[in-house]
Order: sequence, then C-alpha cells, then structure tokens
Amino acid sequence: MGEAISVEELQLAARNHGMPLEALRWDLTPIGLHYLLTHYDIPDVDPEDWRLSLDGLVERPLTLSLAELRERPAVEVAVTMECAGNGRARIEPHVVSQPWLYEAVGTALWRGASLGALLQDAGVEEGATDVLFTALDRGVEGGEEQAYARSLPLAEALREDVVLAYEINGVPLPPQHGFPLRLVVPGWYGMTSVKWLERVTLVDEPFDGYQMSHSYRLRQEEDEEGIPLDRIEVRALMVPPGIPEFLTRSRIVEAGACVLHGRTWSGAAEVAGVDVSTDGGETWSEAELAPPTLGPWAWRAWRYVWSAEQGEHELCCRARDAAGNEQPLEPAWNVGGYANNAVQRVPVTVPA
Amino acid sequence: MGEAISVEELQLAARNHGMPLEALRWDLTPIGLHYLLTHYDIPDVDPEDWRLSLDGLVERPLTLSLAELRERPAVEVAVTMECAGNGRARIEPHVVSQPWLYEAVGTALWRGASLGALLQDAGVEEGATDVLFTALDRGVEGGEEQAYARSLPLAEALREDVVLAYEINGVPLPPQHGFPLRLVVPGWYGMTSVKWLERVTLVDEPFDGYQMSHSYRLRQEEDEEGIPLDRIEVRALMVPPGIPEFLTRSRIVEAGACVLHGRTWSGAAEVAGVDVSTDGGETWSEAELAPPTLGPWAWRAWRYVWSAEQGEHELCCRARDAAGNEQPLEPAWNVGGYANNAVQRVPVTVPA
Repeated sequence: MGEAISVEELQLAARNHGMPLEALRWDLTPIGLHYLLTHYDIPDVDPEDWRLSLDGLVERPLTLSLAELRERPAVEVAVTMECAGNGRARIEPHVVSQPWLYEAVGTALWRGASLGALLQDAGVEEGATDVLFTALDRGVEGGEEQAYARSLPLAEALREDVVLAYEINGVPLPPQHGFPLRLVVPGWYGMTSVKWLERVTLVDEPFDGYQMSHSYRLRQEEDEEGIPLDRIEVRALMVPPGIPEFLTRSRIVEAGACVLHGRTWSGAAEVAGVDVSTDGGETWSEAELAPPTLGPWAWRAWRYVWSAEQGEHELCCRARDAAGNEQPLEPAWNVGGYANNAVQRVPVTVPA
Repeated sequence: MGEAISVEELQLAARNHGMPLEALRWDLTPIGLHYLLTHYDIPDVDPEDWRLSLDGLVERPLTLSLAELRERPAVEVAVTMECAGNGRARIEPHVVSQPWLYEAVGTALWRGASLGALLQDAGVEEGATDVLFTALDRGVEGGEEQAYARSLPLAEALREDVVLAYEINGVPLPPQHGFPLRLVVPGWYGMTSVKWLERVTLVDEPFDGYQMSHSYRLRQEEDEEGIPLDRIEVRALMVPPGIPEFLTRSRIVEAGACVLHGRTWSGAAEVAGVDVSTDGGETWSEAELAPPTLGPWAWRAWRYVWSAEQGEHELCCRARDAAGNEQPLEPAWNVGGYANNAVQRVPVTVPA
C-alpha cells in the first residue's frame, strides 16, 4: 500500500480534508465532510469589496457584485466532485504530493448563476476558444509564484450545467469552498472547479500556466507533454461495514446477512453497473444499482446483501460505465499520481 | 520533526480534519474548518427515534427527546476546543496514533441545555461522585469492543457553562460534531466533550473504561497508572504569514512591515501574555493581546508587527497563563503523545 509518508505530505493531509467513507450514506455530503483540497491558503474575502471581472475576447466586459450575480436566474445542480489525486497514496512507486487514499470525494448541491448565460450577455467574440478562470489564492508551486488559474474549452464552459456557484447545500459558500464565488464544472475532476474566483477571461488558446502545463496531466516521464486530465474516471466506493478498530481501521462484522452499500459515479458516461467481490476479487456478483435520483452529475447508490461467514474476508466493489470504462484491479503509475480509480479493498473479520 | 508516518496513521489523518492555520483569523471557526477527531465511525442517528437517558444515582430517571431538550432554557458558550493529541507528530521518539501537527483546534459557539439544571431536575442522590457519558459510536480499541464513554467529576459536570449542545454557530449540529446532542466541557481537552450522546449516568466512582484508564493519560511507561488529562495546556498559534509553497508549506514574505497575528488560549487560567520571536527563539518580544471578547473559554487574538528583512527567519510564538504555565520550547515525550504544546515554529523566506 505504498511507502511511508513524509512530514511534508502529512502537513498537506492535516490541512486538506477527506470525506470519511461512512458519509457515502448521505445523498448530499454534509458541509464539513465534503473533501477539500486547497493549493495555497484559504483567502479572506470581504464580499462588499469583491467583484467578478469578465473580460478578454468579449464585446462588453462586465464587472459584477455578488448581489448582481444573485439577481440573475439561478441554476442548481447536484455534483459529485472528486480530486484528480484521489488514490495517490496507493500508487507505487510512491508519488509525493497530497496523500489521498480513497476519500477525496463529496456530493453537493451547488446553486449560482449560469456561466453560459453570463458569457452570452458579455458577447463572446470571434476567435475565443477557451475561458480562463483566475482565483484569489496565491502561492508558489514548481518554483513559480502564481494565483491559482485554469482554463476550460469554450464548448465546455457553455454547457448549461456549468455554474458560478454562491451556495452549497442551501447555504452561502463557506470560506473553504470558495466564498464568495466558485466555478463548478460537473463531471470534471475538482481542479477545474476554481474556487475564490476573481476573473473570467475569454482567450484564443488554452492557458499555459502551471496548473495546466505541469499539474493535472497524465505523464510517464517528467519531461513529456502528457495528456491533460478532464473527466472523472468511473468509480464505486462502499461504506466500510460493521465497526472499526481505531488505529488500523480494520472492520469487525457480525456473521449473517450484511448489507454492503455505497455510491458510484463516472464523469465520462452513465454508470452501467457495480460488481461486488467478498473474496478479494476472485469472484464477482452484480450489485443492485439505484436510479440517478440526484440527476446526471451525481453519484448513485448501490447495495448488495452479503451472507457474512466466520473468517477473514476482503470486500471489493468495481464499477463500469456506459462508455466501456471499468475500474482496474490495481493502480496504474503516472508522474503526478493522478486518477487512480483502482477498486477499493476493505479487509473485514467476522468473529465466531 | 519526527519519523515518517505509516499508512495506518495516514488513514487516520485522511478522516480526521485539522483546522488550516489561516482559519485562526476568524473569531468563530467556520463549520467545516473546526478540527474533528472521530474515534470510530460517525453514527447515523434518526432524531425522531433518538432519546437521551439520564439514570444511575438520581431520584427521578429521565428520558428526553430532542424537542424536550430544546424546550429547556438555553445556554450558549464560545469554546476553544483542542484535541489532547495535538502536536503528537512532532514528538520524538515517534508515537503511533492520529498524527496531528498544530491544527487540532477550533472555536465554536455551542448552544444547548444546561447539564447542571438537568441534573438538578433529576435529583442527584447522596454518594454520586461522577457522571458517565456514553455515546452511540462503537468500535474496537486496545482489543476491547466498546461504545465511546468517559466520566467527569460531578463538581465539573455541575459548572454552569457545561452544555448538552444541539447547535453549533447557530445551526443544528452537523453529523460530524455529534448530532443530535453532544457534551461540551469548556476548558477541557476535546475527548471530554462526548459526541453522539445517548446516556448520562450518575455513578459513585470514576468510570474505568478504556478511554479513562488507558487513553488520555500522561504516562512515561506503558504499564504505569499515569495522570489523567483534563484542562487544555496554554498555547499560542499564528497565521503563517505571506504565501505558501504548495508542497513544503514554507512561507514567502515581502520585506517591510508584516503583521503577525494569531490566537492564544489556556484551559487552566487566563492567558497572561504572548511573546514572539523572529529569530527561532533567541530573542523574544511581547505581542499585543486583545481582550477576551468571546468570554472566558475561547481564544484571544494577539498581534505583533514584524519588520521583515531579506533572509531566512524562523518565527515563533509562546504564550503564558496567569497560573504560571508557559509553553515549552521543545516537546516532552509521553506514551500516548499527548498535550504537546511546544511553541510553533514557522520558517519564512524574505526575498530580495
């Protein structure tokens, strides 16, 4: 399960919050349990002074206050968001960065203004191909001082479910989720959904800043160009059953019928099925998959009744989507330790 | 700064949330940024079915619904809560458990029913000396299956600021903070403030369960009885100034006047002063200490204007309280890795 973690990585793990897996039980992740990855520091923003600038290749540059954004027609979308680094700490050889195991995920109901409608009001000029999102959080990464910034192809930015969100789960964004305003791009890994948004700029090529050209690319060699990460890979996770041992988190389950349950999602296509193994992946059985009650961009529930017998077992769950993607049984290595959607393995003991 | 962290410790660090230190800027820690330490799993409680039992050495055992608790006169208290294991990962030789660095702290406004008033209504019988609090979360620790449970001396339980809390910062408790009801004991380390409370029992001796007799004791040898932890040791923390480097969290600060600021607290007595060093503890200067605007049980703000000059610096802050306690410069080892309140050290670079 990977090498030991350095104190530098621990500093990141102590600031960045995972979702305890028992929180898979809730349709919407309660505030405070959704995963959080903050590249630099959480900024302190005075909403009275804050403005969103919309500029670049537009006919009418705009400057909007939070009140003006709230006056626009609201869009609401339930989104399962996952960090592109989820699973990194299980990849070998070890990759040094935020050491996620399985828990960099959460589902929230985001409410805000439609980005596409705002771009229409501003009038996108001929030649604009990408939209650059620049945030208020600043830091140093790869030796370069920078504000967190990412661009998105214009066609994705114009999707009707892309939101400039000022609310999560019915309340104003808390500071850690990007107050006063963040981008939410359903189906894409979390780095795309820029928090603490300050500026939206229409440009004629993809942004080449650090978070585009170095981070968030699948590479086998440090100096190759690699493939940019975008859509979330298919995955299922389970609520670890029974009760935990404090330190090892190993599970004790009573003999008899045990309902295994969890959630499944994919950014690429509808989930087609979830299979469960109770023998470490030797044999698989199909789980019952609930309908997509939260809409197309949020996780779906699954369940499987396991007849637990005395002994040691390794429980696994494995999802596949309608685009033909299936979770791998083992992690695949890459330079940044991204997109490891290998199946979850939960060791359990059923005592006599 | 201690040995490498194992994957078992990482599993704990990924579930249990630290407060990013920039959150010291807020009087009350926003929900989702307060530290969280969950021994077992967060329980899923149906508030309609849930009842609090009050029994043992009382004249009139009581059973109360959440609505009945909310009908009682409400008590509100701002409390700085800290985990007894805060600082553990900086202790050498390494102690294996939840690996906190500095960030296991938060301040919240708790609202609920007075425990003392409830005990008076029930009528405490002669001979009762302690109050046992039993929670709904179950797990295995030290080889023993248990519900999380701790007792408190009766005199402490009768303090007027001890609350059976159903609200935090003006909203119902989220699941991770103990929904529907938790104990809050101001001034004591967090293990005392039992979450997901189910039962309050008047007893005639201190409880001898695992969380009392093994955990949360200061011991130099595994098999000695040791001293139970109670009040929070004096501490000051600062908001790391400037901007961070993503991976190392080292700080870049511009030359010139730099306002260092943070918070200070002690469970034992009023804070008497905070000293700041900008040369790694060689020399110290007194910081400006704000009045205790949040009441006697919550942190106070401090500030110090540093004239930052080009070079490498180590910033430190060190608090002392009216009972004569002062933060040590180096951690003190103990079996459980508890109560390490050694001064915070923040390396910063001031570029040319």
